[in-house]
Amino acid sequence: MAAVAGDVEAELDRLLGPDALSGETTRPPRLLAAMRHAALGGGKRLRPFLLIESARLFGAGGAGVLRAACALEMVHCYSLVHDDLPAMDDDDLRRGQPTVHKAFDEATAILAGDALLTYAFDVMGDIATHADATVRAKLVVALARASGLGGMAGGQMLDLEAEEAREPHTRNAIETLQAMKTGALIRFASEAGAIIGGATGEQFKALSEYGRTLGAAFQIADDILDAEGDAQKLGKAAAKDADRNKATLVAALGLDEAKRLCNELAACACDALASFGEGGETLRALAGFTVTRDH
Amino acid sequence: MAAVAGDVEAELDRLLGPDALSGETTRPPRLLAAMRHAALGGGKRLRPFLLIESARLFGAGGAGVLRAACALEMVHCYSLVHDDLPAMDDDDLRRGQPTVHKAFDEATAILAGDALLTYAFDVMGDIATHADATVRAKLVVALARASGLGGMAGGQMLDLEAEEAREPHTRNAIETLQAMKTGALIRFASEAGAIIGGATGEQFKALSEYGRTLGAAFQIADDILDAEGDAQKLGKAAAKDADRNKATLVAALGLDEAKRLCNELAACACDALASFGEGGETLRALAGFTVTRDH
Repeated sequence: MAAVAGDVEAELDRLLGPDALSGETTRPPRLLAAMRHAALGGGKRLRPFLLIESARLFGAGGAGVLRAACALEMVHCYSLVHDDLPAMDDDDLRRGQPTVHKAFDEATAILAGDALLTYAFDVMGDIATHADATVRAKLVVALARASGLGGMAGGQMLDLEAEEAREPHTRNAIETLQAMKTGALIRFASEAGAIIGGATGEQFKALSEYGRTLGAAFQIADDILDAEGDAQKLGKAAAKDADRNKATLVAALGLDEAKRLCNELAACACDALASFGEGGETLRALAGFTVTRDH
Repeated sequence: MAAVAGDVEAELDRLLGPDALSGETTRPPRLLAAMRHAALGGGKRLRPFLLIESARLFGAGGAGVLRAACALEMVHCYSLVHDDLPAMDDDDLRRGQPTVHKAFDEATAILAGDALLTYAFDVMGDIATHADATVRAKLVVALARASGLGGMAGGQMLDLEAEEAREPHTRNAIETLQAMKTGALIRFASEAGAIIGGATGEQFKALSEYGRTLGAAFQIADDILDAEGDAQKLGKAAAKDADRNKATLVAALGLDEAKRLCNELAACACDALASFGEGGETLRALAGFTVTRDH
């Protein structure tokens, strides 16, 4: 996972480097710097790892797959920039570093998020990502659906509305919210590997189910960490979630039941990969890592 | 133009309607309502008209072209939502109606912009837009490039920086800024028609040059209207631009020279269409309309 994270970091650095866009294009330095601040130097790169490992199940790899993984990561990074804005979660720190609107300003942060999201589709749709235009168009549409009204952006809307609510949230509402806000992009990661690899219908379904359950487990694990974590470890104000009537399964079910559910979902994720045999070992290990990680 | 605007309105209404996304998808009502507020009920629909008329030069038309035109309009509408935000231009009214962050709230407006931008790529990449995946992928990439760091978003960044500057702006800097902020998307509109229509390299170049010069003329005309206009006619506080050290060619060259340049650019736009003969008449008329419009 660290090796993939290194590859992703290097490719993002190149994609957001001085020679990335075609020669005649003007790149406003402040905006590019803010995009780099948002996209570089951070994170586990879970989604790229998942995309790359899913594609590897079909023997697909190389520069094009890495580009697709980076396009996906740009969408994730844009969402963090916008979620951190004062009008949203109003966070000053992310991974111990100033958030984009703190390091630059609010307008620049909004534009940096916009430009990262836009650039993701540029990278995904470009011929350098896959020789087959049908595959590229499928990836673009699937990424857009996972990220938009019916996916990540819609989930963030539901999350903001949930914070405003006075009454506790139902388990069903929380699961829908989380499947959209964080689940959809994680599910896309494994589905994208299947699309790139030319999976059969059955194989696509298996990876989709893996991504769905892994994403759900990942979010619960995150909420457990938030509930248990200390501020220093996470690099942001922990226990903030509880203050805000955040919609989490830890709040709805209690810590023990949430832990049980998280393990169950991770086991389902592993089961979904049965047909891939030993080839699925890395993705099974990722499911295990998701429930045991401490950051 | 009114007929096309009607078609675009109806198609946007359908694309943002209750049955637009696939059956199982949850559509947060507040977010969808904000997207509709941003996209429906307004404007000349210049960009869609331009795309549709450019495609018509090649005999291309129908539902797919209308979808592409609507995807483009979604990108334009998202940019207005984000530009109106308090951290950006801080506008309360747009076409006499409350802006999205006034009608809803700031967080919802940010998300509605994000979701419209994202949905544009969903619509553009979908097989319903064009049977040939190569064409769809080309449209996606070209739209992303026109909208992102090296295009519209980058132009907005330069515009915000220009406002902060104390010294007057050079003509060259203003032209670059405007070619990015408003020009790139207008240029894309005519190029997209060429891509959809399967234009030759020469035909593509001609439409690209038409779009470039039309976009430049359009922006100068807009700045002239702002300089001359009254608040009621425009539905927003006019003369606001002058207060803010906005980078406009009216400010840099004076009103008379700006008018002369605007007419010259519109004439260049018409000239670029020479090879299309009588087929280019509507687009020539559009260039004429651009310099004579009063709203």
